[in-house]
Amino acid sequence: MKREEALEIVKKQLTERRYVHTVGVTETAIDLAKQYGADVKKAELAAIFHDYAKFRPIEEMKDIVISEKMPADLLEYGEELLHAPVGAYLVRKEVGIIDPEVLAAIAYHTSGRVNMTLLDKVVFLADYIEPGRSFPGVEEVRQLAKENLDSALILAVSNTLAFLIKNNQAVYPDTFHFYNDLILQHK
Amino acid sequence: MKREEALEIVKKQLTERRYVHTVGVTETAIDLAKQYGADVKKAELAAIFHDYAKFRPIEEMKDIVISEKMPADLLEYGEELLHAPVGAYLVRKEVGIIDPEVLAAIAYHTSGRVNMTLLDKVVFLADYIEPGRSFPGVEEVRQLAKENLDSALILAVSNTLAFLIKNNQAVYPDTFHFYNDLILQHK
Repeated sequence: MKREEALEIVKKQLTERRYVHTVGVTETAIDLAKQYGADVKKAELAAIFHDYAKFRPIEEMKDIVISEKMPADLLEYGEELLHAPVGAYLVRKEVGIIDPEVLAAIAYHTSGRVNMTLLDKVVFLADYIEPGRSFPGVEEVRQLAKENLDSALILAVSNTLAFLIKNNQAVYPDTFHFYNDLILQHK
Repeated sequence: MKREEALEIVKKQLTERRYVHTVGVTETAIDLAKQYGADVKKAELAAIFHDYAKFRPIEEMKDIVISEKMPADLLEYGEELLHAPVGAYLVRKEVGIIDPEVLAAIAYHTSGRVNMTLLDKVVFLADYIEPGRSFPGVEEVRQLAKENLDSALILAVSNTLAFLIKNNQAVYPDTFHFYNDLILQHK
């Protein structure tokens, strides 16, 4: 699928603001893919569609989690998680993208998981550091991303965990396993 | 077992400083047990023996983890974890305590676990807030412990997780599950 065609499809699913974010994630994912040797076309495609389901009604997303037999614990944590795995499902069903690597990078772009692929990591990090992001700590992650992919991811996930814990929010197990996996691999 | 007898046994296993800590945990565990309706004698016994294995050689503890078929992932995380489950094993074997609730409170006093019993919680918290503890944040947990057991535990475990994450250390899964369990129960 050509970039323009993909952007045209996703634009209809998003707010203007979220579309600008998506373009930022796409540019960043392409840069990171080139830098770290990931498949540039797959990174581009996964980035364009990573938030495809972002504005679907919560009930529709919950129904899909149940009907498609996704992990039931997705329903016990924040609703913010749902659009990633549901997005992968809808991108396959409605857009016709079937590449499992691209779909996985969409599915895990919010939670992470154990054994993240290089493509998963590129999309996850691009979503965190794209130029429109301005939350505390993002600049330090951007700098690390120039030097080492996993170091940048460790800081990004650490920031996310610290934020959740400070706010007494449950942590989705995949995110915890993503963190531990990175730490134990780099000990 | 009488308190004096138990203290005499454990004293031989500990440094003077750790023995003073143990007496502090014991007094605190008794107070918390009375306040929250746990079994006071069991809380006392578990507290007295909670650090029984603290000064065993690391290799001996690792051998016990393997020979007793404890969870193998205990060996992948910090050595600090080992003395709790190994302590429960040695207290049973060498001291003859067989009460499974007391042994569990010893086994999980460092990591925590999902579905902590009231006794587990009392010993875990007593270990965290006994009067000899002076690390950052402990006073706030002490104050919360006067009002609500689980609120105090949430803050204690949050502090521990934040410390580990800040220092790029892996988090033992039981500790993560303990945190999530508390948060999801109190949502």
